[in-house]
Amino acid sequence: MLDHLDGRTRLHVLIGHPIAQVKSPPGVTRLLQQRGHNAVMVPVHVEPGDVDALLSALSTVRNLDGIIATVPHKFALYRHAATASSRAHVLGAANIARRNNDGSWHADMLDGLSMATAIVTAGGRIDGQRALLAGAGGAGGAIALSLLEAGVERLAIYDIDPGRRDALIARLQMRFGTRVEVGTADPSGCNLVVNATPAGMQPADPLPVMAERLTPDMFVADVITEPVVTPLLQAARRAGCGTQTGVGMYEAALDLMVDFLRGAASDLTAHDSGAR
Amino acid sequence: MLDHLDGRTRLHVLIGHPIAQVKSPPGVTRLLQQRGHNAVMVPVHVEPGDVDALLSALSTVRNLDGIIATVPHKFALYRHAATASSRAHVLGAANIARRNNDGSWHADMLDGLSMATAIVTAGGRIDGQRALLAGAGGAGGAIALSLLEAGVERLAIYDIDPGRRDALIARLQMRFGTRVEVGTADPSGCNLVVNATPAGMQPADPLPVMAERLTPDMFVADVITEPVVTPLLQAARRAGCGTQTGVGMYEAALDLMVDFLRGAASDLTAHDSGAR
Repeated sequence: MLDHLDGRTRLHVLIGHPIAQVKSPPGVTRLLQQRGHNAVMVPVHVEPGDVDALLSALSTVRNLDGIIATVPHKFALYRHAATASSRAHVLGAANIARRNNDGSWHADMLDGLSMATAIVTAGGRIDGQRALLAGAGGAGGAIALSLLEAGVERLAIYDIDPGRRDALIARLQMRFGTRVEVGTADPSGCNLVVNATPAGMQPADPLPVMAERLTPDMFVADVITEPVVTPLLQAARRAGCGTQTGVGMYEAALDLMVDFLRGAASDLTAHDSGAR
Repeated sequence: MLDHLDGRTRLHVLIGHPIAQVKSPPGVTRLLQQRGHNAVMVPVHVEPGDVDALLSALSTVRNLDGIIATVPHKFALYRHAATASSRAHVLGAANIARRNNDGSWHADMLDGLSMATAIVTAGGRIDGQRALLAGAGGAGGAIALSLLEAGVERLAIYDIDPGRRDALIARLQMRFGTRVEVGTADPSGCNLVVNATPAGMQPADPLPVMAERLTPDMFVADVITEPVVTPLLQAARRAGCGTQTGVGMYEAALDLMVDFLRGAASDLTAHDSGAR
């Protein structure tokens, strides 16, 4: 898997808690090395109480070029960044950071863009669509923002926790106004349905939306990577919908993350800001 | 080179400044994976002013199992260890640490043992020999201790800096008495000669000892890895001496380091102490 590992190898770390489930270290490493970089990404398991001191100390590591953060460290990574993309600022969270010229961190949040890219890759449309998003947590917020930035006509947000749902809607409405609205579990009237809840990871989970109301004009995407084809996606395929899996989202994320780490992605997609 | 890299991969780091020259990350990684461990060692470039904060923060990384330190961090690694082998205590320095059961670090200094092992592997003898050691720096001190522990009859220490030479001799004499003495660049009367100075890395360097006084009854070893066969070793071979290279020392070190990291080496070779 690794062609190069020596004293000149550039480091990238993925911080998380727990860590065993993460897939990016081998994926990012392979892509970086395929592109000719002597670089590696390794998993770093750190608990929330220790993450700030670790991030401060890691900043002094001279061969450390990048950091990916997964749950629950996306807020901490954002806090440690000197500069960030506008979407990271809106969400107050970042899943990735690279060095600025002065050694400080520039952060971005690529989770939502990864889903938006994956939907288009699988033949789905976003621009002008009426979308239903299930899940107003960290992944849901990032996806909501990217769907709005990619031009959905309307975005209805549904969550079993009304407080969390309304808080996300209120934040997005400040920027996107009435394009954002309260949704229900009923996808009727929408033509893009995205699940950003954990429902579907366990066999006994309820479906995140009313799958019996899915129709062939809808495109259905899911963030869950295990199982690859969730019960929601099974129902969507039976109903004749186009679909995208969480694995497809992850594959899109890999490319976006490596582009970002090499300094390309944010130049194309982010609205950088010089200071917080 | 790496068969395994995923979210369950156990981490080891090599800290140094500079870092580009280090060889252990690929060597240790290969050996760990050959022995069936899902583990990797990566280079971490940190400057002296930042190393204490980094070592403290790294202690909180739950999947970090081991640390190797190279110049100038061997003293810092020793300071951060809760327990250490007797040879690390004597030298006040450590090149390697692994976790104790409570998560604290247990340190050892394997540099000298690596040279002693390499000499024996190459057919040299240590027990009962009369040794001349050139170089009273960090590597020299570690090698001196291991040669004495391995039973040299006498150890003469030579250094172009008399203060450094005498300080090392004084420390060793506290434990080994008159077996330790002041040496000169003249190897006459010795049958084991070890270079622990940098002399020989550059073509214009003077020889570390008087090579014209080498005789076939002497065994000559060198810590320098680049060039593999130093001018001193070339002269020794012309004189009919047995020799061992710095690369041979490094190969011995790899095995010792991986044994230590897996919890085996110090049980065999170190005199552990419970507290500092």
